[in-house]
Amino acid sequence: MKVGIDAMGGDYAPLEAVKGACLAKSAFPVVELVLFGRKEDILSIAGAEGIDASVFTIIDTPEVIEMAEHPVKALVAKPQSSLSVGFQYLATHKIDAFLSAGNTGAMLVGSLQFLKTVEGLDRPCLYTGIPRIDSNPGLLLDVGANADCKPEHLSKFAILGSLLSSMMYKNNNPKVGLLNIGEESEKGNLLTKATHQLLAQNNSINFVGNVEGRDIFGDHADVIVCDGFTGNVVIKVCEGFYYRLAKRGVQDEYLDKFNFKHYGGSLVLGVNAPVIVGHGITKAETFVKMVELAVQAVDSQLTLSIQQAMKKFVENQSSVS
Amino acid sequence: MKVGIDAMGGDYAPLEAVKGACLAKSAFPVVELVLFGRKEDILSIAGAEGIDASVFTIIDTPEVIEMAEHPVKALVAKPQSSLSVGFQYLATHKIDAFLSAGNTGAMLVGSLQFLKTVEGLDRPCLYTGIPRIDSNPGLLLDVGANADCKPEHLSKFAILGSLLSSMMYKNNNPKVGLLNIGEESEKGNLLTKATHQLLAQNNSINFVGNVEGRDIFGDHADVIVCDGFTGNVVIKVCEGFYYRLAKRGVQDEYLDKFNFKHYGGSLVLGVNAPVIVGHGITKAETFVKMVELAVQAVDSQLTLSIQQAMKKFVENQSSVS
Repeated sequence: MKVGIDAMGGDYAPLEAVKGACLAKSAFPVVELVLFGRKEDILSIAGAEGIDASVFTIIDTPEVIEMAEHPVKALVAKPQSSLSVGFQYLATHKIDAFLSAGNTGAMLVGSLQFLKTVEGLDRPCLYTGIPRIDSNPGLLLDVGANADCKPEHLSKFAILGSLLSSMMYKNNNPKVGLLNIGEESEKGNLLTKATHQLLAQNNSINFVGNVEGRDIFGDHADVIVCDGFTGNVVIKVCEGFYYRLAKRGVQDEYLDKFNFKHYGGSLVLGVNAPVIVGHGITKAETFVKMVELAVQAVDSQLTLSIQQAMKKFVENQSSVS
Repeated sequence: MKVGIDAMGGDYAPLEAVKGACLAKSAFPVVELVLFGRKEDILSIAGAEGIDASVFTIIDTPEVIEMAEHPVKALVAKPQSSLSVGFQYLATHKIDAFLSAGNTGAMLVGSLQFLKTVEGLDRPCLYTGIPRIDSNPGLLLDVGANADCKPEHLSKFAILGSLLSSMMYKNNNPKVGLLNIGEESEKGNLLTKATHQLLAQNNSINFVGNVEGRDIFGDHADVIVCDGFTGNVVIKVCEGFYYRLAKRGVQDEYLDKFNFKHYGGSLVLGVNAPVIVGHGITKAETFVKMVELAVQAVDSQLTLSIQQAMKKFVENQSSVS
């Protein structure tokens, strides 16, 4: 298995990316790690940090897409960037997965341009794990890839989330909830009212109904769907709440689970190969988590599962209509 | 000044409402408290609790609107309920403000039916105080009165929130932010992108730009506007986060500020008289906070300020177009 790492992506790249790759190599010795970045920089860091760079495959890419660059323009303007070349390798099966803590917008655009969305899906989406006390994290999606969504999108995100929950936490029949402002099916805004009906008819998932904001930390649902605007606001509210308490010195095992460093980024769900985007402030240890997630996605053939599930879903839809 | 209290509203009514009214009478001896409810029940509680019921004006209302009843139907079906009669008193100026911890939907519908929205406004809205570490709470609105909003609504909510911030916290020129998923003006969903433009042109407010979910606990803005769906999700996420940590025994002064009992409900902003809705689980001490808020709204002539501000805003709009 070959996992590609964007060595230039993230606020602390390339230093933390290279250190992370070194840790990941120890954790997953049989995985071939392919680093995309300025070879000179990578070798210089390896030298300074006492890292044996010969354990990596290094693909020298002279250009770098910065965090603040316009995603579409940057990918066009910099075909020799670590991001662009990494995607080219992934699209041509020279690597099995690709990860970066760089420009999230560029990662999404690159995923769409180089890999395309899975047939039957209009858009990919991003998720976040919401810590729960007594069980594995719940998965909230979309959390920002699609600011405006239609009910059909959310119904398909529910399928993606269910497959991911099965892969990550071995949930056989994950409970799917709809983030909403009331428990009753008729509650909500135009989007959630229409989505509730679609989810109730969706045979590919185990829909358990609406989930209110206060219940996302509980066991009501293993997968919670929402539009990317709402999801993004929710995860940032949690991040802000966590951060303020942590800064005040509040110590609590559950609270600490909100520290993003425990999580290895997010797969771009719904494109035709495993792509993982990490937080811009990702450090070495978290790169290991990202590699772990990549290995899991490749090993479990998540992309194939999504392709098959979407095919089946679309066939069912046509036979009904 | 006469403040009306729905003695039958809330999960712990009439007991906690009557006990709360007693505490409020001590705190505000010059305010005449008018209790709407079953007189027999009120007197019986007063007797059992050693409360001198003669300090209240009691309006005997035989019917009760339950928490789960359909708002519109309940008000029509029960004209002799504490809620309906209370609104009649408020609409005919027999009382100066009305408060209830009962059915929020019925309180909103009653506010619209009996009092009407202020001229120039399409809809009233609800707000919540978001605790901040170094300053008074920030005001988030709308938090649930309007699940679907247009940019024009949010622009007007910004005016309501600014006036409220001035009244509650003596902010002369409160900073207004737009809850969004990026700091840059071009970020967001269709609603927030269009709203950003309107807020930037709104001369009645001090617009400071977008505020991300993680920054609602900071000093970026004193007033933050959003659609009622997003706002409702946000306050319930905060409530759930607070509740789980509190239940684990986490003690922190800032965290404790998220306990709703410190806050006296929410004014229904934008109707032609002060109406206050409380949390269903409101207990006696919090009824005192609700009375305090009512007194503040009446004393400061908040309704008049809103009427004048909306008149001016509408005039400015017509002169521009």
